[in-house]
Amino acid sequence: MQFTSEKHLGDDHILERDFTLGDIPGILWTPASITAPVPLILMGHSAVGLPQMYPRLLDRARHSAAQGYAAAALELPGGGVRPRSAVTDQARADLRRALQAGEPVTDDIVDRLILPLVDQAVPEWQAALDALLALPEIGGPVGYSGGVISIGTRLALVEPRISAAVLFAGSFVPRSIIEEARRVTIPLHVLLQWDDEGNDRQLALDLFDAFGSKEKTLNANMGGHLGVPRHAGEAASRFFARHLK
Amino acid sequence: MQFTSEKHLGDDHILERDFTLGDIPGILWTPASITAPVPLILMGHSAVGLPQMYPRLLDRARHSAAQGYAAAALELPGGGVRPRSAVTDQARADLRRALQAGEPVTDDIVDRLILPLVDQAVPEWQAALDALLALPEIGGPVGYSGGVISIGTRLALVEPRISAAVLFAGSFVPRSIIEEARRVTIPLHVLLQWDDEGNDRQLALDLFDAFGSKEKTLNANMGGHLGVPRHAGEAASRFFARHLK
Repeated sequence: MQFTSEKHLGDDHILERDFTLGDIPGILWTPASITAPVPLILMGHSAVGLPQMYPRLLDRARHSAAQGYAAAALELPGGGVRPRSAVTDQARADLRRALQAGEPVTDDIVDRLILPLVDQAVPEWQAALDALLALPEIGGPVGYSGGVISIGTRLALVEPRISAAVLFAGSFVPRSIIEEARRVTIPLHVLLQWDDEGNDRQLALDLFDAFGSKEKTLNANMGGHLGVPRHAGEAASRFFARHLK
Repeated sequence: MQFTSEKHLGDDHILERDFTLGDIPGILWTPASITAPVPLILMGHSAVGLPQMYPRLLDRARHSAAQGYAAAALELPGGGVRPRSAVTDQARADLRRALQAGEPVTDDIVDRLILPLVDQAVPEWQAALDALLALPEIGGPVGYSGGVISIGTRLALVEPRISAAVLFAGSFVPRSIIEEARRVTIPLHVLLQWDDEGNDRQLALDLFDAFGSKEKTLNANMGGHLGVPRHAGEAASRFFARHLK
């Protein structure tokens, strides 16, 4: 991991550093004054690219830093400057066509859209975690938050260093990921926007039901994909406060 | 409304008063030192009777008083010392028989179990509200919390003095109540125990979906009817803190 720039966000007492992990860009936010290694939150996001996601990521990182956590984001495969995948582009086009035609979104489309992304992104997040935890200012525990829920689900299953996860049920979920969810055991806090236009509510409820975790909370609110109310974000923060100390 | 006894719960700085409203027993808890009229939470509960519910009601009243609210409970029709209803007893026996036989709980059973209770309890709660709001120490706004969700739904619809409600999706719901829910508009915070043995989860989700409120949150957690986790109770408190100030 190479740091490529560093910036003090003075009003928030945050140190923001861009980094690259091989060819993959990422951003790390840490509280400016650290006396002991801090917990870390891996901040998931959609594949539109870190530059486009930056304002919302920064807002989330600010909340994390205010609670004394570091927060990191990592560009997804196909996002931002990273090479696009023909398979994913085709699947996205097929999804758009199906939605516009009012046709059902088939399992085949969802699998082609999500599974290659999960297969590639999860080892990348794990490599980033290796590098981040090697920094003296970052200790643990580690939480995962938001982004593509199938990535969060796979990470929760395969990465034992993740202690708790806030998952955002806002993207299509392959059936095979629902099966993987049955073996997830870490505490989960699942956010669902009840009227999310790009999401299948029943599938989200099926996924929530499937998780094997003894402690899991579903926090569902009115509104669309981007309408998560402030109090729901605060409830997610309190979930991490319970589990990342 | 006649007060029949009064007791200071010293450690909690709470004044607890038993009262009767006609033939109906109730309990009122208020913060011991009040400098201005306080908001009120009507605490719903099941029909097993106030004496049996007392420890849990007191626990909830303590939280309310700590936030500066008064809290009141009112015996339900058929609960405690109040005369039982042959119709309700028959419906309850039919419900038990259906559950034991693994048969579906019919709409007819649910209607006979719940609707007469709602029809009788709601005007009683409204009469209690008249009396409670006439006390100088109680101002408003008024919240409703817990108990039989169909009673809370009807109250939220017909009683304009109730500003916000925490509803516990833990009892069977007649189809007609789901229709009434569509016309409810006050902010709602709905608790659901995902594995509640005496509850129909899909019906609870249908009810949540039906509520017409622009602000509604579903907070679902693992475990059975009595297993509401502490953090879910705290989230409900924060909901009232947002809406009863």
